[in-house]
Amino acid sequence: MLAGPGLFGGLFELGKGYKNPVLVSSMDGVGTKLKLAVALNSYDSVGMDIVNHSVNDILTTGAVPLFFLDYIAMGKLATDKVCDIVNGLSAACQESGCALIGGETAEMPGLYTGEDFDLAGTIVGIVEKDAIISGRDITPGDVLLGLASTGLHTNGYSLARRVLGESREDLDRFEPSLGQTVGQALMAVHRSYLRELQPLLPLVKGLVHITGGGFEGNVPRIMPEGTAARFDTSAWAVSPIFKLLQERGNIDRDEMYRVFNMGIGMVIIAAPDRAAQIVKALPEAKDIGRIIRQNGEQRVMLD
Amino acid sequence: MLAGPGLFGGLFELGKGYKNPVLVSSMDGVGTKLKLAVALNSYDSVGMDIVNHSVNDILTTGAVPLFFLDYIAMGKLATDKVCDIVNGLSAACQESGCALIGGETAEMPGLYTGEDFDLAGTIVGIVEKDAIISGRDITPGDVLLGLASTGLHTNGYSLARRVLGESREDLDRFEPSLGQTVGQALMAVHRSYLRELQPLLPLVKGLVHITGGGFEGNVPRIMPEGTAARFDTSAWAVSPIFKLLQERGNIDRDEMYRVFNMGIGMVIIAAPDRAAQIVKALPEAKDIGRIIRQNGEQRVMLD
Repeated sequence: MLAGPGLFGGLFELGKGYKNPVLVSSMDGVGTKLKLAVALNSYDSVGMDIVNHSVNDILTTGAVPLFFLDYIAMGKLATDKVCDIVNGLSAACQESGCALIGGETAEMPGLYTGEDFDLAGTIVGIVEKDAIISGRDITPGDVLLGLASTGLHTNGYSLARRVLGESREDLDRFEPSLGQTVGQALMAVHRSYLRELQPLLPLVKGLVHITGGGFEGNVPRIMPEGTAARFDTSAWAVSPIFKLLQERGNIDRDEMYRVFNMGIGMVIIAAPDRAAQIVKALPEAKDIGRIIRQNGEQRVMLD
Repeated sequence: MLAGPGLFGGLFELGKGYKNPVLVSSMDGVGTKLKLAVALNSYDSVGMDIVNHSVNDILTTGAVPLFFLDYIAMGKLATDKVCDIVNGLSAACQESGCALIGGETAEMPGLYTGEDFDLAGTIVGIVEKDAIISGRDITPGDVLLGLASTGLHTNGYSLARRVLGESREDLDRFEPSLGQTVGQALMAVHRSYLRELQPLLPLVKGLVHITGGGFEGNVPRIMPEGTAARFDTSAWAVSPIFKLLQERGNIDRDEMYRVFNMGIGMVIIAAPDRAAQIVKALPEAKDIGRIIRQNGEQRVMLD
């Protein structure tokens, strides 16, 4: 990292160790989880959320992070909040070996009201061309392994806020089924899977980050034609926060799986022998389904 | 560009032609120029604004664009507006030989009210390490050349909106001194200097993109210690929109130069012989000052 005064933006020296490097980038926001950060006056965790979300997104191609840039927009700059956000960004970047190389903090009076703000980020990572994970080798019989999420991650907050409320009072209520307050459960930091998955990438045919759109919105992106993913939803325990949301919101099961990750933040697709190796190296990886032969519209089955 | 279904974010194959590549990135927003886009129901030009702004930012290091990602956030997604924005992004990216590789369109009910939206973007470009323009060779006697801006570019809109108004009626008023409506003048697209400057980069010691903070906020970033930039402000004609803003807002001269680009969007710093070559190749480049020897606080003089 060569960043310094006199230069706009960030400079990142790539180095010479690459054969055929492919840059993988993703830009995303935190969504309306930000409204809860405002209500709870707690800003560092959303910084971690956006970094970890981004790290996972590019990890699905086999890429590891190089650098990250952030965009923070507020009606009136509040230095203490910006500092908390940047502390969160910085901690998560460090955890992922990613340089926090630059960004923009914008004051936009009249666009953001009260304490509202927006937070987005861009990650750039790298993968050798012959190590790109594209899903094209996925075949019937391959195993679906699931890694647990820490909660909603960064998706489904508009619905969650409608169901559980978003006032300080709503969020501070201790919920016995959660063993914590509603706000604590909802603000749980988006988990990064980099550390666990990086050593296992050569064993993997496909990775799916379960974000907005849930299983049906994300899994088909990587599946070759003529295949479908059949999940055995009894193979993992749905986290209490999702049970609470379903019950309080009277939300039907299908919609739950369309909006939320339901306790699985990352799906690994691997041949059976490789899947066994992965589970041996990473015992938390749960066998949650199989790739099946299937022509037709339905690419995801949630049994 | 390898982007395709099944992959999150964008993939960009770097190629093998680089000796010691340095990635240069910048993330930025359009600022409150967006409020005028909403008032005028005109969305494509802000897409061009953010791309061109970003292209210029990394160009100051000598980098040329590789790819761009965008972030669009709205309270409720309006497909037609998103399309117009993306058309603008796309046209400007094409103009700069930059791949529009991905992005995020976020629906955030409760955060953006009415038709408000936010637009940010990240550019990633590349420069050979030994071709980085850092400003460190700038010495007294070097020439300051100015390239005209097309208007406010993307800075000073909070002040401009206060002075000239932001209702449809305010913006549709024809202003004889401008030869166009106030809205047309304020919405003029941020100019990209890539096409003109790319062939001249080897002749240049420093480039300064005049953005938020005007001359004083931007020029010192690149200047070595012991030097200052003395501008002869009589060397160029301040554009009519700035005269109108100054007069209507009763804004003093110093503040005008602190907030606005005053008609100069890019400053080139070059040794006198190189400056002569540049002017020969690019006659619009105006001699607007000199680098002088100066110790002390004041790094920019606006004579």
